[in-house]
Parts: sequence; structure tokens; C-alpha cells
Amino acid sequence: MPHSAIRMRSAMELNEAVAASETLVQRLLDGVAEIGRDPPGITRDAYGPGESRAHALLAETARGMGMEVSVDAGANLSMVWRAADPAGPPVIIGSHLDSVVQAGNFDGAAGVIAGMGVVAALQAAGVRPRHDIEVLALRCEEAVWFGLGLIGSRCLLGRLPEGALELRHARTGLTLAESIAACGGDPSKLGAPLRVPATIGAYLEAHIEQAPQLIEAGSPIGICLANPGNLRHPHIRITGEEAHTGLPHRFRRDAALAGADLSLSLERLWLAEEAQGRPMAVTIGRFFTPADRHSLTAVSGTFEMSLDLRAYSPDHLAALEPALHRVVAEVEARRGVTIDLGPRSAAAPGPMDPGLIEALAAAAGQGVPRLNSPGSHDANNFAASGVPTGMIMVRNRNGSHNPHEAMDTPDLMAAVGVMAEWLATR
Amino acid sequence: MPHSAIRMRSAMELNEAVAASETLVQRLLDGVAEIGRDPPGITRDAYGPGESRAHALLAETARGMGMEVSVDAGANLSMVWRAADPAGPPVIIGSHLDSVVQAGNFDGAAGVIAGMGVVAALQAAGVRPRHDIEVLALRCEEAVWFGLGLIGSRCLLGRLPEGALELRHARTGLTLAESIAACGGDPSKLGAPLRVPATIGAYLEAHIEQAPQLIEAGSPIGICLANPGNLRHPHIRITGEEAHTGLPHRFRRDAALAGADLSLSLERLWLAEEAQGRPMAVTIGRFFTPADRHSLTAVSGTFEMSLDLRAYSPDHLAALEPALHRVVAEVEARRGVTIDLGPRSAAAPGPMDPGLIEALAAAAGQGVPRLNSPGSHDANNFAASGVPTGMIMVRNRNGSHNPHEAMDTPDLMAAVGVMAEWLATR
Repeated sequence: MPHSAIRMRSAMELNEAVAASETLVQRLLDGVAEIGRDPPGITRDAYGPGESRAHALLAETARGMGMEVSVDAGANLSMVWRAADPAGPPVIIGSHLDSVVQAGNFDGAAGVIAGMGVVAALQAAGVRPRHDIEVLALRCEEAVWFGLGLIGSRCLLGRLPEGALELRHARTGLTLAESIAACGGDPSKLGAPLRVPATIGAYLEAHIEQAPQLIEAGSPIGICLANPGNLRHPHIRITGEEAHTGLPHRFRRDAALAGADLSLSLERLWLAEEAQGRPMAVTIGRFFTPADRHSLTAVSGTFEMSLDLRAYSPDHLAALEPALHRVVAEVEARRGVTIDLGPRSAAAPGPMDPGLIEALAAAAGQGVPRLNSPGSHDANNFAASGVPTGMIMVRNRNGSHNPHEAMDTPDLMAAVGVMAEWLATR
Repeated sequence: MPHSAIRMRSAMELNEAVAASETLVQRLLDGVAEIGRDPPGITRDAYGPGESRAHALLAETARGMGMEVSVDAGANLSMVWRAADPAGPPVIIGSHLDSVVQAGNFDGAAGVIAGMGVVAALQAAGVRPRHDIEVLALRCEEAVWFGLGLIGSRCLLGRLPEGALELRHARTGLTLAESIAACGGDPSKLGAPLRVPATIGAYLEAHIEQAPQLIEAGSPIGICLANPGNLRHPHIRITGEEAHTGLPHRFRRDAALAGADLSLSLERLWLAEEAQGRPMAVTIGRFFTPADRHSLTAVSGTFEMSLDLRAYSPDHLAALEPALHRVVAEVEARRGVTIDLGPRSAAAPGPMDPGLIEALAAAAGQGVPRLNSPGSHDANNFAASGVPTGMIMVRNRNGSHNPHEAMDTPDLMAAVGVMAEWLATR
């Protein structure tokens, strides 16, 4: 029995079918944008009306396409187009429908909707793959809601960290367990994986690129080589000594200047690593003198900042942690301050499956760039669980996590085409 | 007719009389501390109960010492010990009784109380100076209450900036005009100087040092050479581009790192100037990513900071402004951001009178250090108005504008002794 997909006679050519599915894709993109409308951007709050109404729109659409719809114990939405006689485990096409506050429309949603486009295109082309195709809308990928990201895929694969179910939602104050239960999940079942990784044939995700590398390269899509892992210290606290504006320099223990020094020292580390061919990134997102103390006429005694340090190989990320500690000790000594790094979290880098990189690149055709993803994605959890994982990055202007995020639908359709082509010939 | 003070027979020696006045000085220090009690520190709110009750305590004490008590149109408290037959214009000993929030007890109050100690010592020694001695409690020296400092001395000398009377009190919301009227002043008279500078013989001020230079030198007092002037930009705004954590470095326009770069560049300017013998200071008091936007997982698009730049000579301060603009342009170019310096305010440096420096140094005796004041004081306005002005800095631990400020009364009595000695031999 051949394992490649069955092709019906008298159906459209696949490329015509992909083009025809753009109508559905555009309708769903517009639909989730309307659901999240929060001028000047779009907010789809995780486990809140924004995310849940988007889930409902997708579920209704899937039912109309003959897909089986269900919600798992993590409140993730599963939409399965069944193979008549499955020759292997299902292929999942997934991403997320939540967003950060006043973001753009495409970070996450484009990937779920691309999955629907793939199913629509294969249906229109009369291709019936020899395995189930499951489109997954994973809950709460964004870290803003609970200070922890990738929650839906963590639930699915049994990768929630200790204590995560007690974290509280930034907007509602509900615990994660309460939030999941309110959306139809069952937090009591989240101790173990909901799905055995070996029963998943592959995980594919299309996602907008969160950097302008594809703009720079002039290509609508790129094949992802790896997602970064990260080392995070969300609440670093620097303690120096509050003092009067006129204090001579030799007496100062300025916590804010120590923060400036730490951030620029880490930037120098970053540039030195990249100069030696080791890609990484350092981001200081929160960086502030506390508002209840700061003053035009006082030297700062305390300073707070966050750190997100990311790299693409586990060895490199591991080596960066002692390097961070060295920089911290140097700044403490130079500035006469103490630096408390506070809570630490870490996520492993997510290398993509080499076979899938080649297969997707072949489906994409010559000249399609291969690149590292700037961001971490739900794909990381699948890769870390041993599921063969592939990602397609989609060209996007103005980054993400801001209202100016801008993806053109034809670029997303290129990703739909690559996934459909790979599934049709698998 | 000799111009030196008249000495009565059978009175105490002056140094004994100074020592005896410590009881009064300590009682007044304790009295204003009790009035301002606000654990863990002391708050005497300008034009509020804290400052006004301290004014009342001083006024009552002055009446008991036979001084004439009055309130001027700026609500400043004047306490005059009349000379029987004045041979010249009055000598003012002044400072302020307000404090910042949860401060120490001595910034300001020590100077007013030292004036009372001088009068008490001269009275006990039977010295009757040949000119009136006026102790002045000037209102609202601290900039925290209206975002503008030195208000009492500005009122007295006609140096209120345009629009100042419409500023609003940080705690009560009343305008400055309303606040002054509520304390017995008459804001309608504040357009012109309340006192003609030429009718003031000298202005003396004792003030705790706001740096540990005297601790370092092991001296209870120092003779002030100059108070700094300043150039201030309270609300600098840096605009870059908000972006995702994973954005490669070459694409970033990080507003927070630009703020770090600007602050450390200004620190380098500071150290380079001082290495060439030009004392100054740079303080970045407020330094923050806006709380409604900042996030662990976003590159900052906006950053805000304040700048207080101070120097001791008018020429040096003037030269620092184009140097600041050069640094700003360099950071803009290096970081791809725009830096809006926003509103600007400036205050002229206050050099002390050379004759008074020598006279106070002679009264203080050999080995007393001469030093620049770290902070600006009411003395700046008298110096800028052409009044011969002298200051004595008093040793103080832990800086000022914080609850840990710590002056020992015997150190203040050294300043009382120097002023009394100078007045007795004038």
C-alpha cells in the first residue's frame, strides 16, 4: 500500500486549490481581528473573551469543513480532518490565537488559520492524505498573561513547570487552573502528557517572522532551522544608595547607572558572541527606577530590570549563564551595588527536525532562505518532546507584539502552499 | 564711632556663651523633629502643618528672646534682634524649615536654629552687635512640593519665574499663590523684590553638607566656596521602536539601551571634566521604561529620564550645555532613536563672597577646609542678587533627603561659634 496521498480525478490542481483557499484564510484573519479589536491594536486575552471567541470562530468553521472538533484537558482546540484509512500517526498544524495587549493580528493566529487553509486547499484539490490532519489552536502562548508562555503546548505535552497551575492571570486574577477549567479544560489531568509524543507524526507551524530578515532577503517565507531557548530573570533588583543630586562621583553607589552599566555590558557580550558566529539576543524589557521613589533631585538607591537572554544551541545557552554571572560580579564591584538576579526561568532551544527542514525546503523550491527564528514558539515544546517538528516563517513588517505588525496574506498563502504540497506528496 | 560690636562687662566669655546656647539649639532641633515625625523619617510639608508649626515654634522662641517677629508677603518668617543704634544694614542668618518627604531633621532646619543659637550666644556674652541680626525662616526651599525650589528666597528677592504662582502643590493641589496666602503672605506683592538687596549687609547660612567630604576630612565644619548652578531637563523622552525579544541587534532601535548609553556617556563627560579640574555632577534621578508598556518580552520603544547637571562657575555651566547636545546627537546616531530633551530649567551658580569666605575662615581658625557645596541653597538667590553671601557647611553622615541623615549637635555649634565670633568682632 503506497503511503503517499490519494489524488481524486477531476479535482483542481493543487496550486489552484491553494489560491482558492485564500478567501477562507482572509475571512478568518478578518474574523479574529474583529474579535480582538482594541485600538490602536488587537488584544486577544488568553482564557478570556478575546481568545475564546477566536476559538469558537475556528471551531464553527472546522465543523463546516467536516472536521472533528474537541477540547482537551488544557482547553486547547483540536480540529481533525480524518483520513479514511490512516497509514500513520496524525500530522499536527498548530499555533495560538491569544495575543499580547494591543498587538497586531498575526502573531499566532496566522499559523492556526494557515492550517485551515491547508485543509481547505487539500479538500478542494481532491487530495485525501493517508493520515489524519489535525489543526490545533493552543491556549496562552504569550508570556504576558501568567508570566509564563507556551502554556497550551506545555499542557498537551505534560511540560507545565511545578506550581504553574497556581500562577495568576494578569487581567482576571484567576489562577491558571481556574482559567483552564473556565474554558472547558480539566486541570486535574495536567500532571501527565495528554498526548504521547510518539503518536504524533509531525508538528508543523507557520508563524510570522518577528524580525525583518525575510524583508531584507526579499522572500515571502523561510524555512526555520531552530527556535531559541532562553534564560530569563524577570525581576532583577539592584541596590545602591539613595543620595542627594550633588554627591561627588567617588561617593556614589547609583543603582540606575549600575543598571545602565549592566545592560550595556550584556550588549557587549552579545556582540562579541555573534562576532564569533554564535547567534543570540539580550533584551532588557523592563528597566526602571521605582516610581514611588524616583525624583529629579535624587541619586537612585534601587533599580529594577528584567532580562531575557536567548540562544539557539543548548551548549551555547548553558555557557552564557556563567558569563552573565561574571558580568554581574564585575558591575557590582565597579559600582558598589548589589545585584539580586531574583527568580530564574529557562526554556531549552528548539532545533527543527533535519528531515522536515529538507522536505519543507524541497516543497518551497529553490532560493527559499533557511533562518533561525527570533522568537520561541509552541514548536519548541513539540521538538523538546521528540516530535519531528518543522516551522515556516512568514515575512512580516514592523516586528510583532505591537499594533504595526504587518503580514500580507499572499505571503501566508506561500506557507499554506508549502505545507499542502508536502502533505499531498507525503 | 567704632564699627565693631559693643562688649558688656561682666558677661560670659563668648566661647562659654556659645556652649551655653547648645541647650536652646538642642531643644529647637528636638521640637522641629517632633513636629515633623513621619516614621521612618521626618516630613515638614511646605505651606502645610509641618512647615507652619515649625515656623510657630521658632516665632514663639524668638519673642521670648526679645526679637521682633513678622511675616513677609512670601509668608517667610523674620525674627530680628535690633541693634540699639545700627551702624549699618542688617545681617541675615537664614535657611528653611520645610523638608522632603520622610527626610532627616537637619536639611534646612539646622541653619535657622543655628541663627537662634547665634543670637542666644551673643546675648549671653553681653555682645550687642552694631547692626540688626535677622534670623529668617524661608518657605519651601525643597523642589518636591511645586517642582520648583528656593521659593521663599525667590519671593523675598523678586526672583520667582513667570507662572510660578500658578504651580500646584504636590500634596494639597493648591496653587503657590493660594498656599502663600493661606500662610499669611500676600501673593499680589510678589512681582517685585520685598527687600532691596543693597539694604542687606550680608546673608549667612549654615547647612548640613549633603556629601561626606567633611566626614572624609575629619572636620566638623567647612567654609563654602560656591553653590552649584544647574541645568535641568526633568522630562527627557527617547523614542526608538518597540520590538520582539528575538529581534537581531542590527535591526534594534532600543529606547532603554539608548537611555543607558546616554546616561553613561554623560557620566564619562562628568569624569573627563573633573579630571581637568572642573567640578560638576550629573544625576539621572528618574530613569524608566513606562510601566504601561514595559514587558519581559519586548524591546522598549520609549524611555523616559530626568537630568540634573550642575557646575560651580557660570562659564563652565554654559559650556556644558553644547556638550550635552553633542552627546545627545551622538547617542541618537549610534542608536537610531530620537531624544527629545523636553522642558529646560536653569539656575545660576552661587559663588560665595570672597571677603566673607576669608572672614569666616579666620573666625573658624586654621585647618578648616574650604569646599564646594554639593547642593543649591537659598544662599544662591542672595548671591545672585548681589548680597554678600557666606555659607558654613556642617558635617553630616548619610547625605540628606533620606531618614538616615545624621548631624551631631556639637558640629552645628561649631558653625554657631564661627558666626557669633564673626558678628562679635565685626
